[in-house]
Amino acid sequence: MIKDKYQSVKNHLQKIFDVQASIALLNWDQETKMPKGGAQQRARQISTLSGIAHELLTDRAFKSKVRDLNECLDQLNTEESVNINETFKQIERAEKLDTDFVTRRSALVSETYQAWTEARAKKSFSVYQEQLDKLIQLKKEEAERIGYNGHIYDALLEEFEPGMNSAMVDKIFDGVKNHLQPILKKINAQKKPDDSFLFKHFNKDKQWDFGIDLLKNMGYDFNRGRQDISVHPFSTGFGPDDIRVTTRISETNFSSMVWSCIHEGGHALYEQGMLSQNYGLPMGSYISLGIHESQSRLWENHVGRSKAYWEFHYPKVKNVFPEQFDGVSLNDFYAAANRIAPSPIRTEADELHYHFHVLIRFEIEKALLEGSLKTADAESYWNEKYKEYLGLDITDPNSGILQDIHWSLGSFGYFPTYSIGSFYAAQFHAQATKEIDNLEEQATTGDHSKLLTWLQGNIYKHGKRNSAEGLCKELTGEGLNYKYFEAYVQKKYGELYEL
Amino acid sequence: MIKDKYQSVKNHLQKIFDVQASIALLNWDQETKMPKGGAQQRARQISTLSGIAHELLTDRAFKSKVRDLNECLDQLNTEESVNINETFKQIERAEKLDTDFVTRRSALVSETYQAWTEARAKKSFSVYQEQLDKLIQLKKEEAERIGYNGHIYDALLEEFEPGMNSAMVDKIFDGVKNHLQPILKKINAQKKPDDSFLFKHFNKDKQWDFGIDLLKNMGYDFNRGRQDISVHPFSTGFGPDDIRVTTRISETNFSSMVWSCIHEGGHALYEQGMLSQNYGLPMGSYISLGIHESQSRLWENHVGRSKAYWEFHYPKVKNVFPEQFDGVSLNDFYAAANRIAPSPIRTEADELHYHFHVLIRFEIEKALLEGSLKTADAESYWNEKYKEYLGLDITDPNSGILQDIHWSLGSFGYFPTYSIGSFYAAQFHAQATKEIDNLEEQATTGDHSKLLTWLQGNIYKHGKRNSAEGLCKELTGEGLNYKYFEAYVQKKYGELYEL
Repeated sequence: MIKDKYQSVKNHLQKIFDVQASIALLNWDQETKMPKGGAQQRARQISTLSGIAHELLTDRAFKSKVRDLNECLDQLNTEESVNINETFKQIERAEKLDTDFVTRRSALVSETYQAWTEARAKKSFSVYQEQLDKLIQLKKEEAERIGYNGHIYDALLEEFEPGMNSAMVDKIFDGVKNHLQPILKKINAQKKPDDSFLFKHFNKDKQWDFGIDLLKNMGYDFNRGRQDISVHPFSTGFGPDDIRVTTRISETNFSSMVWSCIHEGGHALYEQGMLSQNYGLPMGSYISLGIHESQSRLWENHVGRSKAYWEFHYPKVKNVFPEQFDGVSLNDFYAAANRIAPSPIRTEADELHYHFHVLIRFEIEKALLEGSLKTADAESYWNEKYKEYLGLDITDPNSGILQDIHWSLGSFGYFPTYSIGSFYAAQFHAQATKEIDNLEEQATTGDHSKLLTWLQGNIYKHGKRNSAEGLCKELTGEGLNYKYFEAYVQKKYGELYEL
Repeated sequence: MIKDKYQSVKNHLQKIFDVQASIALLNWDQETKMPKGGAQQRARQISTLSGIAHELLTDRAFKSKVRDLNECLDQLNTEESVNINETFKQIERAEKLDTDFVTRRSALVSETYQAWTEARAKKSFSVYQEQLDKLIQLKKEEAERIGYNGHIYDALLEEFEPGMNSAMVDKIFDGVKNHLQPILKKINAQKKPDDSFLFKHFNKDKQWDFGIDLLKNMGYDFNRGRQDISVHPFSTGFGPDDIRVTTRISETNFSSMVWSCIHEGGHALYEQGMLSQNYGLPMGSYISLGIHESQSRLWENHVGRSKAYWEFHYPKVKNVFPEQFDGVSLNDFYAAANRIAPSPIRTEADELHYHFHVLIRFEIEKALLEGSLKTADAESYWNEKYKEYLGLDITDPNSGILQDIHWSLGSFGYFPTYSIGSFYAAQFHAQATKEIDNLEEQATTGDHSKLLTWLQGNIYKHGKRNSAEGLCKELTGEGLNYKYFEAYVQKKYGELYEL
């Protein structure tokens, strides 16, 4: 009886995922292959399938079975319990928002996104401000419906980073402020390393081939994935046996392709590492955005910006682009790959300044949601913060408050997961370094197999078995702790700069 | 009230098409982009979405509204009437097959397809024969459930070519036998033109670019479509604003890419010519497989194998591949493009022998369904027919009875639409030639715009407004008549051969 009920829930979950995977393909195609003319029809196809997925998720009989099973988790094994309980939590959260609210939100998001596009075209925050304010009021309503214990922010953060709250994020950013701020002051007072060689001309096809080699070298399985070109790099998937990445190639900026390949490759390795048997189930799904980001950052920064990594790969770079790197030593390349300099755009930031970009958004989001900041004042607040934390004068709002898409889509509580991901990455990588003999030496020979096996065995294959905090404690003996990132920064940038 | 009911049916039909378009994308991706590993998960995604589309189509409230509206077609305008009545007919047909039958058929098709694959691997019809026989018995049951007036074959043919029946097909093939057979005898007794230059080495990328140019020249809109590579060329679409084609490129056979591009381009022009406002509705859908094929054949043969066409394009061919065509005149090329020679494989047949391939399948299908031929005797019957009609000795069943996938998928009644398409093409092209001044001369300058406009205005944009027969009468003053193909053959091959 229980077995039958569980099987029925499992089948239904996998059916929902079939639809979600189809939506993911409609989106992938839209970003990589679709002819321009198809946009309008594609939008309605995505919308219809989203509606079908929603109907399936809110199916009464299904929900009732999940509730019944959630009452007797002790009669299920660990994997089954995780699948049921995670589904139960998802349903509980969804039910706090009735259809009327979801419809209003969907319409408002669509209008706000359009206003944001228009504001960017006119380079004017005020075009967008009123609409954004409406969305913020709605997000406050959403937070109240969902409920929270501490700060109103927590209700929204929970969607992206379950188990995390704003007090914990505050604490982490204390580390950022106390530790990183003085370091950046010192670094920014010094002469920057030359990186002009990264901005010479680099043939597109040669870059493409080099990027494919980097992905293969990481252990990305092209039998269960592929790479394509898109305006903004992303990774997506339709089950663990088909996980795809995209990249972009600039012929005048070598770094653009290289580290986006490694970053998206990291995301994809996580997804390829899930077990096929858990297709469409919480046990086959990522834990949180922070944990997902930890895998892209671990590969991008701890592996892909390390000297050991380039000891193996830089000779290959020189082989493919001999003229561009003529007279550029490994040390020169490594210094350029880790060049620290403030810039107004988050997605172009180095791995240290990056966290101030996130901090600013976090502070503004909190203030807007708790009502201590009016939307009308958000732009001046933004610009003040950029002056304070990054020493920058923002004159163009497109390089300022209008730069990110997130708010226009109603994604409040999302940004902290980027920094959280980096800090988890540092903590996990430190642990891997402890547990795997000669990890750095392996990297110098281009061998990342032991690291990948460690990540697969400890993180990837477990899906949602653990919470983020639980996983972190299990692996490293403690919850998320900024000190690992601090130690990483200290060691790496202590050598690169006079700190 | 009526308006509301109609709007609700229309919305539902377009929702069904959203799902079908998503299935089409899952299939397109599977044939063109999907990494091998994704096959199993893709199969279940397609199966789930097919189930959802079926549920939507058999939704009780929807069906009841369609029935109500079908009772008062006089209160709807022409377009609305077509949408309702065509949907009504589709529902009526579907309802004759209950869920139990559909499930049995689906399982049997899946087993038969596997048996066919195995039979091909073992080059043995007997491996497959018993399974095929089960499927034939089921198709007989299907035909009985659906019902028919004349021959049992008609019930199945109706699905692919509504309005056509086996007596009409018989009559058409009388033309084929009486007219084409003696002609082929004469041609086959003559010396074949040299076509060895088509089988030299042709660079893949250059062929690709040339194929794209051919598509653009036809009027295929790359803003609402794209071309990719697949094992078997096909066209597919997700609404008229995104209609895609695929091709294959052989580096040792120039004709493979060229005429598959033009053929699939013809299919795609038909779909691109539907009106966006009729997205997902019968008014935005093709009339029958025969009419669809008429468009691919019209472009492939009447345009793409004409001398006028190559007067414009052959200099371009020579420009791209100067060595391969050194010393080859336009007349040589034109003769090679229309070289007539019997061969055992239907998909490689010339445009005359082709119809005997279809005739043989039609005769076997009819005999199997009416019971005058036992499945166990089908192979020897096949081989006898190939000897009789094409003078060929079939020794390898993979080049014989096992060559086509159709039967293994349960598609009985499908093959005649290929020939019907050719004959409609001849009839439509003759009419276009009558109505458009200097059509042939336009082709010599690479200008097909007037032809395309004629096809769009007379056929493409009307979707299912007319039946196939009705359209043919409206355009040409009479129903399908073999004599137009006869005249085309007479003129063209009379010049190429001594007839």
